[in-house]
Amino acid sequence: MIPSLLLRKLYTHGSLRNAADGLSLSLKNRLSAVVLTRLVKVRIGSLDLGPEDLEVDLGEGQWRPATEISSGAPVPFDLKQVAQIRAPGRTISEGMHVIEIALEVKGLGALKFKVEDNTAKPRAERSALPCVKEGNYSRAIVAERRAFVEKTTGATLHHTSQHSFDPELTQGNIENFTGVVQVPLGFAGPLLVKGEHAQGEFLIPLATTEGTLVASYNRGMKVLNLSGGVTCTVQGDHMQRAPVFIFDSAREARSFRKWVEDHMDEIRREAEATTRSGKLKYIDTYLASKFAYLRFNFKTGDAAGQNMVGRATFAACSWILENNDSIRRFYLESNLATDKKASQINLMRTRGKRVTAECVIKREVLLEVMRVEPESLAYHWGVANVGSILSGANNNGAHSPNAIAAMFLALGQDVANLAEGSSGILYTELTPEKDLYISITIPSLIVATHGGGTGLPTQRECLHVLGCVGAGKVHKLAEIIAGVVLAGEVSLGAAISSLEWVSSHEAYGRNR
Amino acid sequence: MIPSLLLRKLYTHGSLRNAADGLSLSLKNRLSAVVLTRLVKVRIGSLDLGPEDLEVDLGEGQWRPATEISSGAPVPFDLKQVAQIRAPGRTISEGMHVIEIALEVKGLGALKFKVEDNTAKPRAERSALPCVKEGNYSRAIVAERRAFVEKTTGATLHHTSQHSFDPELTQGNIENFTGVVQVPLGFAGPLLVKGEHAQGEFLIPLATTEGTLVASYNRGMKVLNLSGGVTCTVQGDHMQRAPVFIFDSAREARSFRKWVEDHMDEIRREAEATTRSGKLKYIDTYLASKFAYLRFNFKTGDAAGQNMVGRATFAACSWILENNDSIRRFYLESNLATDKKASQINLMRTRGKRVTAECVIKREVLLEVMRVEPESLAYHWGVANVGSILSGANNNGAHSPNAIAAMFLALGQDVANLAEGSSGILYTELTPEKDLYISITIPSLIVATHGGGTGLPTQRECLHVLGCVGAGKVHKLAEIIAGVVLAGEVSLGAAISSLEWVSSHEAYGRNR
Amino acid sequence: MIPSLLLRKLYTHGSLRNAADGLSLSLKNRLSAVVLTRLVKVRIGSLDLGPEDLEVDLGEGQWRPATEISSGAPVPFDLKQVAQIRAPGRTISEGMHVIEIALEVKGLGALKFKVEDNTAKPRAERSALPCVKEGNYSRAIVAERRAFVEKTTGATLHHTSQHSFDPELTQGNIENFTGVVQVPLGFAGPLLVKGEHAQGEFLIPLATTEGTLVASYNRGMKVLNLSGGVTCTVQGDHMQRAPVFIFDSAREARSFRKWVEDHMDEIRREAEATTRSGKLKYIDTYLASKFAYLRFNFKTGDAAGQNMVGRATFAACSWILENNDSIRRFYLESNLATDKKASQINLMRTRGKRVTAECVIKREVLLEVMRVEPESLAYHWGVANVGSILSGANNNGAHSPNAIAAMFLALGQDVANLAEGSSGILYTELTPEKDLYISITIPSLIVATHGGGTGLPTQRECLHVLGCVGAGKVHKLAEIIAGVVLAGEVSLGAAISSLEWVSSHEAYGRNR
Amino acid sequence: MIPSLLLRKLYTHGSLRNAADGLSLSLKNRLSAVVLTRLVKVRIGSLDLGPEDLEVDLGEGQWRPATEISSGAPVPFDLKQVAQIRAPGRTISEGMHVIEIALEVKGLGALKFKVEDNTAKPRAERSALPCVKEGNYSRAIVAERRAFVEKTTGATLHHTSQHSFDPELTQGNIENFTGVVQVPLGFAGPLLVKGEHAQGEFLIPLATTEGTLVASYNRGMKVLNLSGGVTCTVQGDHMQRAPVFIFDSAREARSFRKWVEDHMDEIRREAEATTRSGKLKYIDTYLASKFAYLRFNFKTGDAAGQNMVGRATFAACSWILENNDSIRRFYLESNLATDKKASQINLMRTRGKRVTAECVIKREVLLEVMRVEPESLAYHWGVANVGSILSGANNNGAHSPNAIAAMFLALGQDVANLAEGSSGILYTELTPEKDLYISITIPSLIVATHGGGTGLPTQRECLHVLGCVGAGKVHKLAEIIAGVVLAGEVSLGAAISSLEWVSSHEAYGRNR
Repeated sequence: MIPSLLLRKLYTHGSLRNAADGLSLSLKNRLSAVVLTRLVKVRIGSLDLGPEDLEVDLGEGQWRPATEISSGAPVPFDLKQVAQIRAPGRTISEGMHVIEIALEVKGLGALKFKVEDNTAKPRAERSALPCVKEGNYSRAIVAERRAFVEKTTGATLHHTSQHSFDPELTQGNIENFTGVVQVPLGFAGPLLVKGEHAQGEFLIPLATTEGTLVASYNRGMKVLNLSGGVTCTVQGDHMQRAPVFIFDSAREARSFRKWVEDHMDEIRREAEATTRSGKLKYIDTYLASKFAYLRFNFKTGDAAGQNMVGRATFAACSWILENNDSIRRFYLESNLATDKKASQINLMRTRGKRVTAECVIKREVLLEVMRVEPESLAYHWGVANVGSILSGANNNGAHSPNAIAAMFLALGQDVANLAEGSSGILYTELTPEKDLYISITIPSLIVATHGGGTGLPTQRECLHVLGCVGAGKVHKLAEIIAGVVLAGEVSLGAAISSLEWVSSHEAYGRNR
Repeated sequence: MIPSLLLRKLYTHGSLRNAADGLSLSLKNRLSAVVLTRLVKVRIGSLDLGPEDLEVDLGEGQWRPATEISSGAPVPFDLKQVAQIRAPGRTISEGMHVIEIALEVKGLGALKFKVEDNTAKPRAERSALPCVKEGNYSRAIVAERRAFVEKTTGATLHHTSQHSFDPELTQGNIENFTGVVQVPLGFAGPLLVKGEHAQGEFLIPLATTEGTLVASYNRGMKVLNLSGGVTCTVQGDHMQRAPVFIFDSAREARSFRKWVEDHMDEIRREAEATTRSGKLKYIDTYLASKFAYLRFNFKTGDAAGQNMVGRATFAACSWILENNDSIRRFYLESNLATDKKASQINLMRTRGKRVTAECVIKREVLLEVMRVEPESLAYHWGVANVGSILSGANNNGAHSPNAIAAMFLALGQDVANLAEGSSGILYTELTPEKDLYISITIPSLIVATHGGGTGLPTQRECLHVLGCVGAGKVHKLAEIIAGVVLAGEVSLGAAISSLEWVSSHEAYGRNR
Repeated sequence: MIPSLLLRKLYTHGSLRNAADGLSLSLKNRLSAVVLTRLVKVRIGSLDLGPEDLEVDLGEGQWRPATEISSGAPVPFDLKQVAQIRAPGRTISEGMHVIEIALEVKGLGALKFKVEDNTAKPRAERSALPCVKEGNYSRAIVAERRAFVEKTTGATLHHTSQHSFDPELTQGNIENFTGVVQVPLGFAGPLLVKGEHAQGEFLIPLATTEGTLVASYNRGMKVLNLSGGVTCTVQGDHMQRAPVFIFDSAREARSFRKWVEDHMDEIRREAEATTRSGKLKYIDTYLASKFAYLRFNFKTGDAAGQNMVGRATFAACSWILENNDSIRRFYLESNLATDKKASQINLMRTRGKRVTAECVIKREVLLEVMRVEPESLAYHWGVANVGSILSGANNNGAHSPNAIAAMFLALGQDVANLAEGSSGILYTELTPEKDLYISITIPSLIVATHGGGTGLPTQRECLHVLGCVGAGKVHKLAEIIAGVVLAGEVSLGAAISSLEWVSSHEAYGRNR
Repeated sequence: MIPSLLLRKLYTHGSLRNAADGLSLSLKNRLSAVVLTRLVKVRIGSLDLGPEDLEVDLGEGQWRPATEISSGAPVPFDLKQVAQIRAPGRTISEGMHVIEIALEVKGLGALKFKVEDNTAKPRAERSALPCVKEGNYSRAIVAERRAFVEKTTGATLHHTSQHSFDPELTQGNIENFTGVVQVPLGFAGPLLVKGEHAQGEFLIPLATTEGTLVASYNRGMKVLNLSGGVTCTVQGDHMQRAPVFIFDSAREARSFRKWVEDHMDEIRREAEATTRSGKLKYIDTYLASKFAYLRFNFKTGDAAGQNMVGRATFAACSWILENNDSIRRFYLESNLATDKKASQINLMRTRGKRVTAECVIKREVLLEVMRVEPESLAYHWGVANVGSILSGANNNGAHSPNAIAAMFLALGQDVANLAEGSSGILYTELTPEKDLYISITIPSLIVATHGGGTGLPTQRECLHVLGCVGAGKVHKLAEIIAGVVLAGEVSLGAAISSLEWVSSHEAYGRNR
């Protein structure tokens, strides 16, 4: 049975109207295709309306009496179809009203739900950005928007209007396209990477506005190169969506966990039907109170996959909602995914790629290039670990987000995923030879070589620089980013250990 | 007394050399100006060298016998001055050696320290990016770098080479400038902000590559505007650096906490001497094991201030190191700042600005615009809170990093500070009138209107759009960002609550 | 002005009654002594009652017309005084009613508040434990309770009835005293402690039911003793209560923080007036949404002090509520104290005592006694640290709660404070001599030598064993506990490092 | 191949001795039964000893030439067997020496390992507690210990010596038994529990020294009873041990995860061979750096099971170590279990029992009994949640550890497991009827009805009171504890909400 909370989605809020031709409202089918066999009644406030009081327009642009719909003369009501209902000659007072609607649907019988709506007149729109439904990426409308912004704010949009590509290209990447932000791009390296997917030397594109960043990473890369390169390994790969199901009590929530396990095949089938490349690998269930949180874990191929898994999870949940009677409420997200957040669950159980970069740095290299002994870095690791414990930080390393931000920007990744990407687990160890083993694990690095900003012209060029264009390159990209991150940990870690950290900022004259 | 770990900084690593004119090494004064009264001895491995074996060049380009330096004929050794020492006619085997150096310094007496260095020949440089010491931002060298990258990688740098400004402008923002990344810029709004600094309607620049983001924020802004606008308040403002001091035992660490309290005036004086606008407000001391972690808290005016506080803290620490005998080791950073990290300490005790945006959203607005009841969002808040507890997330809201990333990018902020900025505390409450009170507190939002990328042309234009150029505008900027973040929480929160969240992605056709 | 939420406390819930002599209800003054100048009106549901309809009994057991109270004939209404009000001849329907009461009070003018209550008859009590108001600790009533439990449950209370002291002694420690639980007590040590307060060898009382615990701690103590003893330092000492104040918006919450700073003298005065030994040291304010959380920090002398600081904070808050008009709601606790919880704030900013125990363990001692090299423990520390990061544990050590639980039990401490006490920060370091420096910091160890269970006979004997009876011994006790904890870290850490950990459990034959 | 770090366990530290009959040392087989085919050599410092220099005693108490052992005349060397080796006529200087031992073992070939040991004379024992190997629980030795403690410390052990049972009973529960601590026992309730295992009314035994605790829980139980009782559900049940395996690099760690999955049958077989009731359900693998952390999850029947799973995991790991060549180091515990700690992993993925108690509390009951409206508690939940976010607490409720501690004590549970048990997830919701739904989930409640202190006389009596003696009662016990915890949340939550919280402490006169 379709729960009543879902049924309420049929109603289109804001559609209740005292029109010239009668009181009217709209339904839009947002659930699934059905066949209507009767419009039983509509009640608005204290006004009761039967089929004989009502007319219906099922989208053909033509009104007919509601009494025409019957089990003998059923009408299909398809997904996304809009039905309008009116009661000629009736009106209702302005303000909020409770609306009850009852229908009969083939195979499901009588359905009934309640919503609230008001009849208040739409408010006057304030002056708004020029924007059209079709052709909103044309040069004309873009120019119009720019002029509007300039006029409204007094600012000049000279530089932001200079882009080297056709605005149409950005469809799917941004709405209300009005220009570009130009972020300086520099290169560091080459960095010698010994991955399973990335092998050899790579010049690293870094887009940043922060002085010393490129120089600092460059220095770290030199150290890694002289130590034989950085070894990188992708250790995990999953993207999540985490709906929550709400029950009468904890006991039903627990039964539901079992039910989900028992219906994994169907759930997987429904989820995977919505996507070509996404694969549902497993579901973790977390129980608390009367809630069951399901964390769906997918492989998403070359895409980061948040939308793909959103769609697939929604499809699976729709099937679940239709097939399990004990569910009382449902939300598609519950802060267990955890999208755009730093979290312990991401650190523990991966989001995006889990990737480790590691290197044994030779003692003499560290002394020559960074003027610091391995012992000093290893000691700092211990002290900074205690610091991390005290501060409750999601990263016991130095500054991995610097590299990740600069590469995400250059390579068309979703920069907001830095929330997840900011986590890091640094580890150092003095080898018996008194060299320094150092590694960093990034447990939730969300990267893509397809979708999002990866197709934009400048970003694509940077992906080309790394040889990360085309299918099957996303693990290569993850490895390179991790290698760069490690270079930065070595560089800043050594600078802190040698006390020279501040002076390097000075030399490059930041903060003008 | 200068600790011996600091003294070791005098030695220039990699300078030990078997040259034609004798075994040599260099000292560079990285501590403070002193006057040398004797070069007592140098010991390299098992080779003992007295003043009579040594010659010195104090930077004049001329060698003299080390015996010439005496208390009767002292020589100044200034900060940043380089002294070379050689032992004519001596050589030492290739490899690592322990080096001991003893000096006498006026007012300090005998100083002695040990370092390690090796005599290995420098390795051959690998082919590297074209790069010059002077004029590294000229169009010529930029073109040369571009050509090098294209040749090395086979990629074409066509789009990235198209920027509307002179590369020289990026000095202080990036090294090895080679072009730009163009990030699409859209506008949302206007948003009605009721801050103390930001008042009125603002068109919001958002730079992003993620479809639906601008549209989603736009929808949230509409809801806020129709509810009378968003109220924004900056509740805290501090930037930190957190050095660690290491002692013989916990007892000395505890005494040091007291010592720091007793010497706050001197510490403040030293710190503030390095900066025009930075003010040291207070120091938090955290003790664990034999370590004392000091978290310096500064006001930094219009700048984000990480470098400013790094410099100021270093100056203060130098004074501390010179004036407290009990310190055994010292690092300028200890993971208590916590720079470029999400942390509990930032959430609790602020990093950058702590800013709250809040609004009472009218029931009918939510129904009309978002088709969802306030009750549904309020209920979701509770369920998602339990989700956050389970996942250990640093944000119990929906997606604040989306707005922050897109605005940071557009406005020349340091995107890596999204690590800190990703934290958020969402709160909702149903009012007695059944409207929805909703607020978000961003406890560590690092923003600037001066320094970093704020002076770059496209970014500056966006700052102009918000009226955030010039002195004293940084709280205004923080208020606007918080307001936008709240719009996104309303929009996505409502979408989740109304089940329409996935379909909005669909409509805008992302993931091509 | 007294906020209306406070005023509602005047009303005694459950007192609304249709009695033979009329409809009645009670007020109890739970706020502060006032003088009444008029009873303006009482409205119950739709029934309006003026002074002429009402009679009042102010506790003298005698009814008089409400009209007798006037500004000319005011009556005192003292703290804890009970006033009954009745309307002769009136009745009201059974069920819930909204009650409005209006009074005039000298100096405050008109006060008005609304509450809800119902008139339902009290339910029949179920069969309950025998319990009397006076003399509830007599041997007779204890025996009666025991008989009741035995009869009701079929269990025999033979052993639990055997205690060596008079039940009256437990007044203030437990209600419904019915016997005792006998927990086995063993001794470990002696342990050589080098504290500031605890100096010399101590035999350690441990009450536990877990085999191998005493033996394991004993082994660790041997190692510490052979290394010269354990150095212990109390680094912090504060007890907290954290009320929350709720405002119209974040801006008022921020102003309130300033207001509290400006009124610290008055707040301290009010707080300290309630206690002989408690001293209010400082208040931390944390802002989020429209809430201001105040964390009051007290010194509490020999007591753990939770009640003392609860009382003192309540007094301070009462003063605040009376003197600040902007507060809308208030709760005395807000999960920022954080009582009976493990929390980052306790770890960071201390709750109870912050105490560090440390020792340099000699290499040969570790090899001989524990058959393990220092390197193995130091390496394990690093690996276990990464484990702690992954698991999100509040303790990177091995098992400090074992010692704390066994000592808390033996010494009459509040065992529930193990929640706080479970936090620990372990640190190890290999010295240049290849010995093992090891320390543990317990950031929130709540201990007392006065109050709670410290006065009970068996517990007092154990305190005597440690010489911790009498004033000024609480830091000594904290030092000894920390020393014992470190012994356990050495013992279990070494056992894990030497693989013998499981077998030691085997040998002692637990889990029969 | 047996890794050399394991082989070193053969050597018995402290056994190197310059004895009258020659230089000697011991091996104890702590690995697995093997057959020796040759003693190849022993090297102590610079002293090289071949088989012809050595004599061996394999435990028969008789020395024979080491040359007698050969592939023709092999000798078994069983698990736990001790072999002594001596070199007649040799001595070595006092102090630390490196010892190398080479053996040949049938099927494994040559094995060689290095250890360190010293020959220093054992130190004089300090005066110690009387203690004997056999009969250490006799009344005589207990009296002797008591006398020793009294004499050493000046304390009197009068009350602690009064126990109602034979000390022998405590074998397996404590070493060095010297008496008992008597903890006051009170009863609260009855509490009406609607569990799957616990059904009906239960009188609740609470052992505590903290005044008001019993009274407060009693009040909460009254509220739950009047609302129809508390519904309790066990939602999870697992006990863990988490060893860590260390590899050359992250890549081998990742391969190992796969290897473990592929060998689950063998691993389960080895683990379960060590226990009658323990069942290995699944293993979670967590990767970081070059480490693989395995979290073994067992069902443990009526026991808490920490020792059982320790043994079983060790057996499984021994098999793993013998069958996987890529492992470089191994520790049986890694802070991922996480035993005796509060942790996110326990909260998320259960340790012991995960149990939820819930109740819909009727509005009028709350008003009558607690004088507080449901709205006030629900509002407090939201505010306290934000407080928990700020403080980083492991429990968003009020004080669940109070009930858990008092019941653990009364019922013979391991009180140190309060570290895990302190976590709690509270949730409240106002129902459409304006009643209060409230639930608490305790995610890591470690309870037993067998083993540990459950067999001790007073504790057993309390288990009898609850009907929790005998097999299959452990879920019943978990349900009852959760129900009591909820009573306390209602009681203290309501007290805070009604401002009466402090005064209730006053009334009962604590802190004398």
